[in-house]
Amino acid sequence: MTTTPLNFQQMILRLLDYWQAQGCLIWQPYNVQVGAGTMNPATILRVLGPEPWNVAYIEPSIRPDDGRFGENPNRMQQHYQLQVILKPDPGNPIDLYLNSLEAIGISRREHDIRFVEDNWQSPALGAWGLGWEVWLDGQEITQYTYFQQAGGLDLNPVSVEITYGLDRIALALQGKNSVWEMAYGAGVGYGDALLQAEIEHCKYYFDVADVDALKMIYDTYEREAIRCLDAGLVAPAHDYNLKCSQLFNVLDTRGAIGVTERAAYFGRMRRVAHRVSTAYVEQRQQLEYPIANNPAWSGGRAESSAPGTWNLEPGTHAPADVDTFVLEIGSEELPHGDLTSALEQLRAAVPALLDAARLAHGRIRVQGTPRRLAVLVEGLAARSADVESVVKGPPADRAFDANGQPTQAAAGFARSRGLSVDDLTVVEEGGKRYVSAVVREAGRPSLEVLAERLPDLIAGIKFEKSMRWNATNVSYSRPLRWLLALHGPALVPFTYAGVASDRVTYGLRPFGSPAIVVPDAAAYLPALAEATIVLDVDDRRALIAAGAEALARSVHGVIPADPALLDEVTNLVERPTPLLGSFEERFLALPPMALVAVMRKHQRYFPIYQGERLLPYFVAVRNGDAEHLDIVRDGNEHVIRARFADAAFFYDKDIRCGLAEFVPALGKLTFQTALGSMLDKTRRLEQLVPVVAAMLGLSDAERATAGRAAALAKADLATSMVIEMTSLQGKMGGHYALRGGESAGVATAIAEQYDAVSSTRPALALAVADRLDSLAGLFAAGLGPKGSNDPFGLRRAALQLIENLTAHQQRFDLRAGLDAAGALLPVTWGDKPRAEALAFIAGRLEGVLREAGHPAGIVKAVVAENAQDPSAAWLAAAALAEATRSPDWPAVLNAYARCVRITRPLPQRYTLRPDDLAVAEERALLDALLAAEAQRSAAGGSVETFVASLRGMEPAITRLFEDVLIMDKDPAVRENRLALLQRVAGLAAGVADLSGLEGF
Amino acid sequence: MTTTPLNFQQMILRLLDYWQAQGCLIWQPYNVQVGAGTMNPATILRVLGPEPWNVAYIEPSIRPDDGRFGENPNRMQQHYQLQVILKPDPGNPIDLYLNSLEAIGISRREHDIRFVEDNWQSPALGAWGLGWEVWLDGQEITQYTYFQQAGGLDLNPVSVEITYGLDRIALALQGKNSVWEMAYGAGVGYGDALLQAEIEHCKYYFDVADVDALKMIYDTYEREAIRCLDAGLVAPAHDYNLKCSQLFNVLDTRGAIGVTERAAYFGRMRRVAHRVSTAYVEQRQQLEYPIANNPAWSGGRAESSAPGTWNLEPGTHAPADVDTFVLEIGSEELPHGDLTSALEQLRAAVPALLDAARLAHGRIRVQGTPRRLAVLVEGLAARSADVESVVKGPPADRAFDANGQPTQAAAGFARSRGLSVDDLTVVEEGGKRYVSAVVREAGRPSLEVLAERLPDLIAGIKFEKSMRWNATNVSYSRPLRWLLALHGPALVPFTYAGVASDRVTYGLRPFGSPAIVVPDAAAYLPALAEATIVLDVDDRRALIAAGAEALARSVHGVIPADPALLDEVTNLVERPTPLLGSFEERFLALPPMALVAVMRKHQRYFPIYQGERLLPYFVAVRNGDAEHLDIVRDGNEHVIRARFADAAFFYDKDIRCGLAEFVPALGKLTFQTALGSMLDKTRRLEQLVPVVAAMLGLSDAERATAGRAAALAKADLATSMVIEMTSLQGKMGGHYALRGGESAGVATAIAEQYDAVSSTRPALALAVADRLDSLAGLFAAGLGPKGSNDPFGLRRAALQLIENLTAHQQRFDLRAGLDAAGALLPVTWGDKPRAEALAFIAGRLEGVLREAGHPAGIVKAVVAENAQDPSAAWLAAAALAEATRSPDWPAVLNAYARCVRITRPLPQRYTLRPDDLAVAEERALLDALLAAEAQRSAAGGSVETFVASLRGMEPAITRLFEDVLIMDKDPAVRENRLALLQRVAGLAAGVADLSGLEGF
Repeated sequence: MTTTPLNFQQMILRLLDYWQAQGCLIWQPYNVQVGAGTMNPATILRVLGPEPWNVAYIEPSIRPDDGRFGENPNRMQQHYQLQVILKPDPGNPIDLYLNSLEAIGISRREHDIRFVEDNWQSPALGAWGLGWEVWLDGQEITQYTYFQQAGGLDLNPVSVEITYGLDRIALALQGKNSVWEMAYGAGVGYGDALLQAEIEHCKYYFDVADVDALKMIYDTYEREAIRCLDAGLVAPAHDYNLKCSQLFNVLDTRGAIGVTERAAYFGRMRRVAHRVSTAYVEQRQQLEYPIANNPAWSGGRAESSAPGTWNLEPGTHAPADVDTFVLEIGSEELPHGDLTSALEQLRAAVPALLDAARLAHGRIRVQGTPRRLAVLVEGLAARSADVESVVKGPPADRAFDANGQPTQAAAGFARSRGLSVDDLTVVEEGGKRYVSAVVREAGRPSLEVLAERLPDLIAGIKFEKSMRWNATNVSYSRPLRWLLALHGPALVPFTYAGVASDRVTYGLRPFGSPAIVVPDAAAYLPALAEATIVLDVDDRRALIAAGAEALARSVHGVIPADPALLDEVTNLVERPTPLLGSFEERFLALPPMALVAVMRKHQRYFPIYQGERLLPYFVAVRNGDAEHLDIVRDGNEHVIRARFADAAFFYDKDIRCGLAEFVPALGKLTFQTALGSMLDKTRRLEQLVPVVAAMLGLSDAERATAGRAAALAKADLATSMVIEMTSLQGKMGGHYALRGGESAGVATAIAEQYDAVSSTRPALALAVADRLDSLAGLFAAGLGPKGSNDPFGLRRAALQLIENLTAHQQRFDLRAGLDAAGALLPVTWGDKPRAEALAFIAGRLEGVLREAGHPAGIVKAVVAENAQDPSAAWLAAAALAEATRSPDWPAVLNAYARCVRITRPLPQRYTLRPDDLAVAEERALLDALLAAEAQRSAAGGSVETFVASLRGMEPAITRLFEDVLIMDKDPAVRENRLALLQRVAGLAAGVADLSGLEGF
Repeated sequence: MTTTPLNFQQMILRLLDYWQAQGCLIWQPYNVQVGAGTMNPATILRVLGPEPWNVAYIEPSIRPDDGRFGENPNRMQQHYQLQVILKPDPGNPIDLYLNSLEAIGISRREHDIRFVEDNWQSPALGAWGLGWEVWLDGQEITQYTYFQQAGGLDLNPVSVEITYGLDRIALALQGKNSVWEMAYGAGVGYGDALLQAEIEHCKYYFDVADVDALKMIYDTYEREAIRCLDAGLVAPAHDYNLKCSQLFNVLDTRGAIGVTERAAYFGRMRRVAHRVSTAYVEQRQQLEYPIANNPAWSGGRAESSAPGTWNLEPGTHAPADVDTFVLEIGSEELPHGDLTSALEQLRAAVPALLDAARLAHGRIRVQGTPRRLAVLVEGLAARSADVESVVKGPPADRAFDANGQPTQAAAGFARSRGLSVDDLTVVEEGGKRYVSAVVREAGRPSLEVLAERLPDLIAGIKFEKSMRWNATNVSYSRPLRWLLALHGPALVPFTYAGVASDRVTYGLRPFGSPAIVVPDAAAYLPALAEATIVLDVDDRRALIAAGAEALARSVHGVIPADPALLDEVTNLVERPTPLLGSFEERFLALPPMALVAVMRKHQRYFPIYQGERLLPYFVAVRNGDAEHLDIVRDGNEHVIRARFADAAFFYDKDIRCGLAEFVPALGKLTFQTALGSMLDKTRRLEQLVPVVAAMLGLSDAERATAGRAAALAKADLATSMVIEMTSLQGKMGGHYALRGGESAGVATAIAEQYDAVSSTRPALALAVADRLDSLAGLFAAGLGPKGSNDPFGLRRAALQLIENLTAHQQRFDLRAGLDAAGALLPVTWGDKPRAEALAFIAGRLEGVLREAGHPAGIVKAVVAENAQDPSAAWLAAAALAEATRSPDWPAVLNAYARCVRITRPLPQRYTLRPDDLAVAEERALLDALLAAEAQRSAAGGSVETFVASLRGMEPAITRLFEDVLIMDKDPAVRENRLALLQRVAGLAAGVADLSGLEGF
C-alpha cells in the first residue's frame, strides 16, 4: 500500500458511512459494560420476532479474561467491535462485508480472507448461530453468524450478524506490530488513548476485585432483573442481566468460579434471558410490529441485489442425445466436516437417483470445495428408459359379469391405467383370479426428470448442524446461494431454497467471485480450471502436501504426517497456495505442546520439525494465488507472534513457582457450590485415591505415585496457561510437575487424568477416583442430569469411567467405589443418590455395549446383573454374544428358559431335598446342577462358565421336562422338583438375566 | 428550509465528521451509564493536567428524573449528547460551534441563537465552570462551559466544553412537535427505535427500583472505588464512582433521598472524585505527559485561526490635536449582571484614569452589549498635561556642609530627580529645614499614556464570578476576544490577556460576526449603527419595552411592569426584536404561578395579562432582525409547549389526590440520616409548632391554624410539581392545600414557610419551628457548618429566623425554642449543641446588625447580652446607636465605664449595705441607682431605659468619683462603696455590654 492507511477513527467513520449507505440504522454503543455488541439490545432483542432490522454500531467490548496488562500485541480486556445486523438476510451479505473491507483499504486481492467454521453460542444468552470466523491473513478479524436462536427462542427470520474486530483490522491495515503502536486519530496514538486504562482494568480484574462483594451484587442484580420482569419491564431487566454477565466475567477472571459453578451461573443468566426474550416478543406483537413495514427496507435489497434470482430460460434445447450432466450447488463456505460428509452422501445418492429415474449414465464424479459441491455425470441419457409393468386389477368375477362382459369395475380399472378394457387379461394367483394389465411407461426427457428429482437430492444431504437463512426456512449447512444445473447445453430448471437453477458459476473470492457463464455441461470443468479453482479434494490435498513438504525441506525440516489437519486445510480453500512463515526462536523455549496446539488448533498451520526438535517455522495455506504472498505471510507471522506472546506471557507467569504452590489457589475455584472448591475436591481425592488404589490392587509404589498425583492433580487449573487454554488441562499439569522435579509416574497420572483411558495403573486410580467423586457428589447434591440437560458433564464422566475400566479389563465394584467417595462428601450420601448414580452409569453402560455392536437383548441381560462392574459387563456381553452364535444355543436357552418359566410364578423358594429325588431324570439333573454349582464356585460367575454349565445340563433338563410330570399330584414330590429347577434358574444370578433374550 | 433535513443519524455522523476535520479525536460513548458526556473519562480526566486534548464523541446520557414515560415532547430519561472538548481554548470556539450547526443545516441567520449565562457545576465531580446555555429559538440545545475545576483541582489550561443536546437540535432541525416523531435513520423513527425502552426505564426508575438494594450496592461500589484507589487504579475507581452516581440518581428519582442526605452523598462522590483526579494528575506526570507534544495540535489552530493576534501597526499616526477616543472590549457573551456591573465600574474608573493620566477630555460615555463594553471619550487631549511638583530631600544640615557646599547626599538627591544641585532650595517645615526641589514632568503622547493604563483599567473590572480561559491565566467574566482602541485615527497599542489591540470590531452573531475595520474613533458609533447593533442599554431597553407593549396590545393584553426581567432581556441581546408567541389555551388550567415561573425564569418571556387573567401569549425577544422571524417564533412556541406539557404532566399527577395523602410518602424522603425522614420532621413539627406558638403568644384560632399547617407543611415535597420545580416548594403546597379545601390561613402558612418573612402569625410559628428543628437537629447530629462549608444551608436558616423575628418585632427566647426542638429529636440534645447553635446564630445576628449599618462596637455590645433574642438585639442596637449619637454620650459612657473599670477586677460581689452609706455623694448615687432599678423592673431591660437611667446617674457617679475616695482605708467603707458601684455596673446585664464601645 502506498497511500497512508486510515487511522483508527477514520476507519470507524468510514465503516459507519458504508453501512449507512447500505440502509443500516446507525446505533450507539451501549452504556452497560458488555462482552460483545451482540448483547446490545439493538441486536439481542431486535433479532427476535418478525420485524426487519438493519443496524450497525460500534461496541467497546469488555472481556476481562482477555486482559494482558497491555503486554500483548492484540489481546486486551477492551476491544472495539463493529456490529452489523441484517435481518432478514439480504442475499449477498458476504459480498457486502467484503466490500466494506475494500472501503477501508483492505483488498481481497491482496490478502488472504477466509471463512473458517465457527459456530457461535452464548450459554448466558441462550443464543446460538452458525457461521465463521473470518480470517485476514490468518488473523481472526470478524465473527460472522447466521443467528438461529436467542433467549432460547427460534429466530424467524434469521439475522445475519457480522461482528468486526476493529482493533485487529486496524492493526493489519496500519501494518503495526501491536495495537498500542497504532494511530487512533488526531495525532494521538491508540496506546496514548487507551493503554493506561487497559493496564489498570487488568489489575482490577485479576488482582483487586472483591469476590464476595461482587457475588452479592450479582445476586442483587439478578433479583432486580426478575422484579423488572415481574413488572413487565423488558429493557431494564435486560440491562441487569448484562450487568450480571459482566460481574460473572470479572469473577471468572478473578479465578472465583469453578467449572461446575459456571454452569449454574450460565443457567441463571439464561433463564433471565429467556424471560426477557419471551416478554420482548409478546410486547412487539402487542405493539403490532411497528417497524414491520419500513419502506426503506421492505421490497428492498434482498430482492434487487441477491444472487439466486436468475431468470429461467424456458424451452432451452434439451440434449439431443446422451450428454454430460453437471450440477453445482453453490453456497457460502461449508465447514470442513460438512464438505466431506456431503461429498460422501452425494456419491451414494446420485447413482441411486439416476437409477430410480431410469436415466442411463456413464461415469459419475462428485467433487467439491468449500463453496461448491459438484456432481458430474458423463453420458447421461436424454430420456429415461421406457418400462413395462403388470398391474393387478379387481377380481375377475367382479370385472366380468355372468355373460363375460366387462363391468364398470373393469372399465374403471382400465381407464385409470390409460388402457381400454380390451387390453385386460385375467391371471390366476394363489387360487384366485384377477384382472390384470400390462402398463407401459414411456421414458421422459431428462430435463423433466432431473428437475423433479434434484430438489430432493439436495434436501437429502444431511449435516451435523444445519441452519436456516431465508424465508423458505430450508435447512442447509450454510446459505445456498446458487445452483448450476446443465445437461449438455440445456438448463435443468428447478428451484430450491428460493434459488432458481442457472448456468452461472462464480469464481474465487479473492478475484471478487466473478460470475462465469457456462454454455454447456462439458464446459464446466474447463471453466473452473480457468478460474484456477481446484475442484477435486484429492488434487487439493496433494498440492498442499507437496507444497508444504517442499517448503519444509527448504528449511531442512519435515512435516510429520497429520492427515486430520491436512484434510481440514484442504477443505478450507478452493485454490491452495502453501507459504512458509517463521517465528522468533525465543518462543521455542515454550513447551512444544503449547506451540503445536496454537499452530494446529488455532491457526491450522503445519508445524515443522527437525527430528524431535520443533523448528521456528510453519506452513500456512492461502486461498488464492501467489500474488501479494508477502502481505499474506507478513500477516500470518504477526498473528502467530501475538499468539505465542500470549502463551509466553502465561508460561512465564506460571513457572515462577512450583505446581504445588498453585494448590491453595484452588480454594478460590468453586467446583460446585454445595461441593466446595477445587481445593476441597483435591482434599477428597487425596483420601479417596488410596482407597480406590487398594480396590484396584495397586502395589505400594503405585499407590504412593497415585497419592502424590492426587494432591497435585487439579493444581494446573489455577495456572494461567490452563485458565487460558483449557484444552491443555492435565497436560500442562504433567509438564509443570515434571519440570518441578516430580517423578515421571506422578506426571503421567496428572497428565492423563482427563483422558478416557489411562496408560498406567496409578493414572487409572486417579482418573477413577476423580470421576467417582464427581458422580457421587453431584448426584448427592441433587444435580444429576435431567432430560438432555447435563450441565456438569456427568455423561462424559460416566462414559470415561466405563471405558477406562473396560480398557484395563479391571474388575471394580462401583457400589463400593461410590460409597467410598460418598463418605467423603460435604453433603449427605445414601441409598437414593447411590441408586440414581448407579442407574445413570448403567444407562451409559448399555449405550457403550450397544455401540460395541451387541444386540439389545444381550446388553439388557448382562447389564441387569453387572451394572456395578463395567469391565465384567463388557466381558459378559462378549461371552454371551459368543454363546448365542453357537448352533446349540436355541436348545440350551430353551432348556434354561423352561426352568425359569415354570418357577418364576412361584411365590416362594422351596428347599431342595436331594435324597428325596427318586426318579433317574431328577437325579441326572441334580448331578449336573451340583457340577455346575461347583464350577461356578471355583471359576467365579462368568458367562462362559454359566453357559458351559447350561450346555452340560441341557440334556438332563430336556429329559426331565419331557419324561417326568413336574407338577406331580404329591405336593412333596412337586415342590422338590420345583426346588431343583429353582436352583437351576438361580445359576444366572450375578451373571446375566437371560429372560429378555430372543427365544426365551 | 426546502431541502429534506438530515435525519438523526445523519446529523450525528455529519457532526462527527465536522469535528474530526477540526482535529478532534473521535471517541466512543462510555460503557457505564452516565448522566452526561462530561463524566466520560475522555472529559473529566483528560481535562486535568497540562496536556492538550481535543475530542468529540456521542454520549447517550441517562437522567432518570427527567423521565416522563415518553409523554413529553423533548424530555426523557435518555437523551443523546455530543460532547466536544477543546483544550486549550483554540481562540474561536464559539465560531467553531456555530459553524458546526451550519454544517447540519442550522443557519445562524435564520434562527435566534443565544448564549444565556449558565454556570455549570457538578457537586458530585467537584467540578465547575462558567459558560452558557445556548438557546436555539428559545430552546436550550447546548451547554457551553469553560471548565475551571474538576475533582476539586484547578484546571490549567482551561478546557472548552461544548455539550450538544442532539435530540433537541434534531427536533428543531426536523421541525417536529416531539422527538418521538423524528426520523432516526434508515426509515426508522426515533420513537420506533427508543420509545418503548424509554417508558420501561421510567417505570423502573420511578416505581420499581429496590431502594434498599440499590443503597447497599452504592455502599459496595464506593468501597470498591476506594480499594481501587488504594491500589493506584484510576480508571476502575472512576468507573465505580460513575456507577455510584447513577445509583444515586435512581435513588433520587425514586424519591428516596432527602435534601440533607443529598449533600452527604455528594460529599462521598466528591471525595472519591478528588482522589481519582489527584491520582490521575500524578500518573500523567509520572508518564511524562505522553501527548503533550502532539504535532496535530501543537502550533496548531489556536495560533492560526484565533482572533486577537492582529498585527500591531507601530508608528501609527498619533492624533494631532484633541480627538475622540474609543475603547471597545470585545468578549464572548457577558452574563446580564456582569454587563451591568462592568458598565458601572467603567463609568467610575474611566474619569479617574484620565484624571490620573492628566489627559484632558470632554464627555465620557460608557455603553455596552453582551459582547462589548465601549468607552467613548470626546475631545481627548493628544498629550497629557505637564506638571510641576515639589519634592523634599534630605535635611539641610546633611545636604550642605559647614561651608554651605552640597554634600554627596545633596548630589545624590538631585541626580535621582534628574536635576543639578543648583536646582535645590532649602525649605522649613515643622521647625526643621530640608532640601527641596521643583520637579517638572512634561506631558506625554496620549497613545503612550493610554497604552500604559488601559490594561489596568480592564484588569480593574471585577466580576462576581470570573474565569480563566487561556495561557495568560488572566481572569474576566468570559473570554476576552478582541480590543479596539483608537484615539482619533491612531491605534492605542497594548496587549491584554493575550489579545493585542486593533482597529477591528465585530458585527452581530446572526450575521456571522463580520470583522469591521474602524478607521477612526469617530467612525466607531456609525459603524456599530450600520451593523444594526444597539450599543446603549437604555436604547435597547426602550425598544424592547415599546415593542413588547405593542405586541401585547395587539392581543388586547398588557405586560405588567417587570423591571428585573426587562433588564435581563435587555442584556441578552445586541439587537432586540420582540416577537409575539402563543400557546394552547388548555395550559391556562394550570396554576398561573407555574406558567409564569416557566415563562419568566426558564424562558425569559414576558407573560401577558388581561386584568388578573393570564392570556395564552408571551413576548420573546430575539437577538437579530425580523427576517425569518416565523422560524424563531415557531421554535419558541415549540419550546413553551414542551415546558408546559411537562408542568401539566406533573400537575395532573398531583391533583389526583389530596395534599394530606402525600404525607406518608415523606417517609421515603430522608431529611438527614440521623434525623430521620421528612415524615419524621413533620411529626416533630406537629409537636413543636404548638409549643412555639405558645411562646409567640398566638391565639387559640391561630394555634389551630399553625398546627394544621405543620401537619401538611412538607407534603408538597412529595408532589411531582415540586420534585420537578423545587423553587415552587411551599407555594405549590399552599395551592394544593387551598384546592383541597384547607383554610386560607393554613394555605398561607404552608406557602410562606420558606420565605424570609411571614405575613401571618401562624405562618411565623411554622417558619420559626421549622428552622429551630433544623438548627437544633443538625447541631445535635454534629453537622453544624465547618469553615465556609455549609452543606445543609444552616446559615440561611439562621438568617431567616433572625429576619422573621425582627420583622415581626417578636421577642423570642431562642434558648427555650431550641430546647423545645431539641427535646423532640431522635438524637441527644444538650449543652454542647445548644451552645454551638446559639453561637452560630449569634454570629449571623452580628452580621445582620452590621449589614443594617451599626458599628462593630455597638453590635458586639448588644449581641453580647441579646444573642438569644434577635428582635431584642435589633431594637437594642438601634437604641444604643441612637444614644451614642447624643452629645452627652461620652460623659455618660465615661461615668458608667468608671464604675465598671473599678469593679471589674474584683474577685467577688459585695453586698450593699444602704444604711451604711453615710456620705452625701454615696446617698445621691444610691437614690439614682434605686430609681434606675425600679424603672428597669417596670419597663424591662431595654437600652432606652438603661441609657436614660445612666444619664440620670451620671452626675452622681461623677461626683462620687471626684469627691470621694472610693478605696477607703476602712475595708467596710470601701467594700460598701464598691458594692454600690457593682450594682450600677450590673444595670447593663441583659441589655448590652458597653465595654467594647469607643470611649469606654
